[in-house]
Amino acid sequence: MLTSFDSQMMARALQLAELGRYSTRPNPSVGCVLVSQQKIVAEGRTRPAGGDHAEVDALRQCTDNKGVHAYVTLEPCSHQGRTGPCSQALIEAGVAVVFVAMRDPNPDVSGTGIEQLRAAGISVVEMPLEAVARPINAGFFQRMETGRPRVRLKMASSLDGRTAMANGESQWITGPAARADVQRWRALSGAIVTGVGTVLQDDPALTVRESGYDIPQQPLRVIVDSKLRTPLHSKILQQQGVTLIAHCSEEPGTELARQGAQLLGLPANDGRVDLPALMSELARRQCNDILVECGAELTGSLLAAQWVDEILLYMAPALLGSAARPLAQLPFTAMAQKLELDIEDVRQVGADLRLQLRPRYQVTGATAS
Amino acid sequence: MLTSFDSQMMARALQLAELGRYSTRPNPSVGCVLVSQQKIVAEGRTRPAGGDHAEVDALRQCTDNKGVHAYVTLEPCSHQGRTGPCSQALIEAGVAVVFVAMRDPNPDVSGTGIEQLRAAGISVVEMPLEAVARPINAGFFQRMETGRPRVRLKMASSLDGRTAMANGESQWITGPAARADVQRWRALSGAIVTGVGTVLQDDPALTVRESGYDIPQQPLRVIVDSKLRTPLHSKILQQQGVTLIAHCSEEPGTELARQGAQLLGLPANDGRVDLPALMSELARRQCNDILVECGAELTGSLLAAQWVDEILLYMAPALLGSAARPLAQLPFTAMAQKLELDIEDVRQVGADLRLQLRPRYQVTGATAS
Repeated sequence: MLTSFDSQMMARALQLAELGRYSTRPNPSVGCVLVSQQKIVAEGRTRPAGGDHAEVDALRQCTDNKGVHAYVTLEPCSHQGRTGPCSQALIEAGVAVVFVAMRDPNPDVSGTGIEQLRAAGISVVEMPLEAVARPINAGFFQRMETGRPRVRLKMASSLDGRTAMANGESQWITGPAARADVQRWRALSGAIVTGVGTVLQDDPALTVRESGYDIPQQPLRVIVDSKLRTPLHSKILQQQGVTLIAHCSEEPGTELARQGAQLLGLPANDGRVDLPALMSELARRQCNDILVECGAELTGSLLAAQWVDEILLYMAPALLGSAARPLAQLPFTAMAQKLELDIEDVRQVGADLRLQLRPRYQVTGATAS
Repeated sequence: MLTSFDSQMMARALQLAELGRYSTRPNPSVGCVLVSQQKIVAEGRTRPAGGDHAEVDALRQCTDNKGVHAYVTLEPCSHQGRTGPCSQALIEAGVAVVFVAMRDPNPDVSGTGIEQLRAAGISVVEMPLEAVARPINAGFFQRMETGRPRVRLKMASSLDGRTAMANGESQWITGPAARADVQRWRALSGAIVTGVGTVLQDDPALTVRESGYDIPQQPLRVIVDSKLRTPLHSKILQQQGVTLIAHCSEEPGTELARQGAQLLGLPANDGRVDLPALMSELARRQCNDILVECGAELTGSLLAAQWVDEILLYMAPALLGSAARPLAQLPFTAMAQKLELDIEDVRQVGADLRLQLRPRYQVTGATAS
């Protein structure tokens, strides 16, 4: 029988999990609250990778955890990773009851943590809170379940869907609040992907510049650069952290490697880097969330290949006119090809609008997975 | 000294004024509450044109109005129109105090109604409520103050700012809720303006079909048709009410007149109907609010000529792609030409977004007034 006290304790655990969203990757961010006699005796959350998991973080704070109730936002892990299994730690501490907000969605693990606890005589209460707990680690869960990282495509346009004038003249379309908001999405991401066209035109750094996020390191920067056209003195090569150049060139890119870039040769598809191959590689590198910030061409390719899980569209309240450049190269010719979207969120960010959209791909279309 | 009771009474008067927004044109919709001994004794509102004004409508409901307090949303009129002046009616009734929410913005009238009341020994209290009272009759006030009707441009597009495929293939882009919402804006309008291109392509009726609005008659329908290309059997010519064809042709349009259309020859500007001349004529015909529903060409012309006061943009959550047709023919070539907008309202209407936008025209641009 779940009480409102249980809900309050789990709500606190979920808050703790939220706090770790920027710092725990590639691990999921989990929160844990330990309660004894209706009082919180310890709070824990996943520490940056290699550090403690939430349960161990909480257990460490008391010498005697015998009989406590634990509220955990994700089924405790049952396997030996960089840290020991949390199920074992809870058993050894003598915890009496464990409340979990959702099962581990990894099909190989799901339920085994709970089974281990129950086998040791601990009561396990599964709370029906997956709808709340899942979004905190949406990218991690998707990677576990499908092998695909969660791809978030950032776009910025005028209200008439334009990004620059026909002659290429461009400037910040959206305002400072929208640009600051983008920093947050970068900070949430394991990798930031761009195209060589954007590197050539804008020479971006693609780093997290805002200091308010406790990121473990700069997200991996990835340039999709089929023919190795990245200039040797690009800003992106001079930043902290790793820049990966994904190409399908015959050349080895020695000069770029000398500038500090990691080169990644991938299969070609129509003369261009095979995007599914790139995404698989990023999943292999444990990137849960990928932010794509690129031009109309790569944007169009990703959408056409159905590789985008979420669109983050910043719209500036202006019209750039009918001659200006389009948001995405998507040369649809028939209405039946249109890409339908679900609006998940709309809000004003400074003077601009921000829409969170989920593509509703046609099942008849080719999928890239 | 204004009390919260006064605010409540005026709030009720404003509600009454709201009720008349669809029915009183070309007159402004006004509300009036009569109070005796802190009790409402009568409520009135502007009746459809030719009928009573709000004050008279309220006064008629009691045989003795001596000493009552009147709350009126607009300064009582002081001139003889189709009905007698309201200031005189209030004086004759022996009203003791008149509260007004705002002065009549018509520069020739402003203050004279109040003066007449005061000269007759009635106390007049001006409440600082113009910001609330003005929007109820925004079109009327604009026409009084500037001689220009208030032009509302309705547009519908995908999120990438497209309205149809390149080959012209089109269909309802927005959903049924958005289309029903458009009915409301039609019902609020004295005239609905379209271009002959839309008539040729979509053959619309451009009437108010929803029965929930107590409109006095169908809004005037106006086709901007420089060369008299409107087909004789267009649906728009077969509807209740008047269809005006604004042209600059040498031809008299006899056949169209025989089909019931009113022909309006106007000066040409670059071979097309001069839009300022059209708008002046619509103001002369006492159209306060004009809804424009047209294609990309006339949309672009109106925006470029700075004739649009408000944009009503319905955006369907879909991408039609980079080859599809643009929202407005606005062939800007430099970023400096972009049209900036203020977002006044954003909301979801069914599955679509509706934005209310106010253009921020550059003062350096040519104005069409």
